Amino acid sequence: MKIAFIGVGLMGRPMVENLLAAGHSLILWNRTATKAQSFAARAVIAANVAEAIAQADVVITMLENGPIVRAVVFNEDSLAAFRPGTLFIDMSSIPPAMAREHAQWLDARGCYALDAPVSGGTIGAAQATLSIMVGGAQEAYARAQSLFSALGTARYMGEAGTGQVAKLANQAIVGITIGAVSEALLLAEKAGADPRAVREALLGGFAASRILELHGQRMIDRQFSPGARATVQLKDMGMIVGEAEQVGLNMPLAELTKTLYHDMVEGGFGDLDHSGLFVWLEKRSQA
Amino acid sequence: MKIAFIGVGLMGRPMVENLLAAGHSLILWNRTATKAQSFAARAVIAANVAEAIAQADVVITMLENGPIVRAVVFNEDSLAAFRPGTLFIDMSSIPPAMAREHAQWLDARGCYALDAPVSGGTIGAAQATLSIMVGGAQEAYARAQSLFSALGTARYMGEAGTGQVAKLANQAIVGITIGAVSEALLLAEKAGADPRAVREALLGGFAASRILELHGQRMIDRQFSPGARATVQLKDMGMIVGEAEQVGLNMPLAELTKTLYHDMVEGGFGDLDHSGLFVWLEKRSQA
Repeated sequence: MKIAFIGVGLMGRPMVENLLAAGHSLILWNRTATKAQSFAARAVIAANVAEAIAQADVVITMLENGPIVRAVVFNEDSLAAFRPGTLFIDMSSIPPAMAREHAQWLDARGCYALDAPVSGGTIGAAQATLSIMVGGAQEAYARAQSLFSALGTARYMGEAGTGQVAKLANQAIVGITIGAVSEALLLAEKAGADPRAVREALLGGFAASRILELHGQRMIDRQFSPGARATVQLKDMGMIVGEAEQVGLNMPLAELTKTLYHDMVEGGFGDLDHSGLFVWLEKRSQA
Repeated sequence: MKIAFIGVGLMGRPMVENLLAAGHSLILWNRTATKAQSFAARAVIAANVAEAIAQADVVITMLENGPIVRAVVFNEDSLAAFRPGTLFIDMSSIPPAMAREHAQWLDARGCYALDAPVSGGTIGAAQATLSIMVGGAQEAYARAQSLFSALGTARYMGEAGTGQVAKLANQAIVGITIGAVSEALLLAEKAGADPRAVREALLGGFAASRILELHGQRMIDRQFSPGARATVQLKDMGMIVGEAEQVGLNMPLAELTKTLYHDMVEGGFGDLDHSGLFVWLEKRSQA
């Protein structure tokens, strides 16, 4: 089984390492070619995307967003390079509606598609502990198991697009919980409690979360270098609210969190880590 | 050291068990006397609160809210029963301002006071794994260590009232996160993803929390018998927003969550567990 891996960036690089370590045969492509070159001794480096796809049984993408996936994989040349039976696994985070379209287009060519975005970040990618949320046909999911197991833990969410839906659910919780932890630690600080002790105590009770653990520490240390930028969290919140509108759901907390990130980005704090919402909420109270 | 324990309800009962198991000598009082009677073979049952306080070196309260603590312990008779040097430990959840007043009144009598509310619920109480958030004088905190260690893990938050501040921070995160998990699982369901698989996948990534673990399961099972009632969560959200106003902090997510719980209670769902916000948010979208 030959795998084309497209997008060897912060996330893609450690994932390629893990696939190689599991004995898979890889063809790589990256927009900035130098990022793929370091793998030249252990993988084939393709001159262009179509060349990579044409040789592959499985095509994995790990790109920045939906429009980039569309531009790179669903242009005329790249799409024409898919041979019938090829399995496309998009591990990028893109809107569910876009993922459903990609699945339809590939189905029309006799190919298979899975949307398989991840949670766990660069650390999860490096440690092969990514949580992989998969949408698409169940036969295709079964076929991808050996690949997923080299990268983390995969779970089947349902039809095409539902992997992306699960990722949006993930991002909604992440964004709102960052807001919750920010407000709680600001309250603690302003009311004279020791925020470090508060964080530790709360990790021992019902308020415990990975956000409180990791981002709560960042807030206490006021260390907001990204990580995942606030601009990206704002983009995610937009996708969440958009998907909610499409299915007729009110998400009042997600909508408010989108507004808070919007104001934070407008206020010039967009390049902070998303946990930097803490400083924006602090600033907002001082105004 | 003789301990008066006042309030042998859902939380107090297992805490009394753990204090007895650790070898402490107890005098009990409960408003509904029958709840204390089952301990008659192992502890002294006081006829009234003043009698319990008068015999005690340490007075622990575990009552429903601030007004009840005030009515039970800070009436003329009870207050007069405190001997100089007595340590008062209020493990109830009450407003920080009220806890500060109690500390002042006891200080004026030559007594000591700690506010020491807990997180972890009846399970944490039974297993002696409560997270105990303590405010007050550090000497008093040191004196209470052997008691706290029989009940869970205590941490020192700062001056009088900061234990209650930490508890409010806890409740803010709990309430907002219940909202976040509700919205996320509703989105998953409405957009065709399997909520059970989504919950599991999200527990493996950055969205992981005890709320997602415990209350996410309740939402999937639609099992909302309390637990902690929505009415109580609403009361907590009110205390949080009140304290935030006092210290000049905006808590937009806490304010919105307060409004959501308010509407839920007004809508007749106040006796559901606080995780039942899920059904209120669902209903709200159908309106």
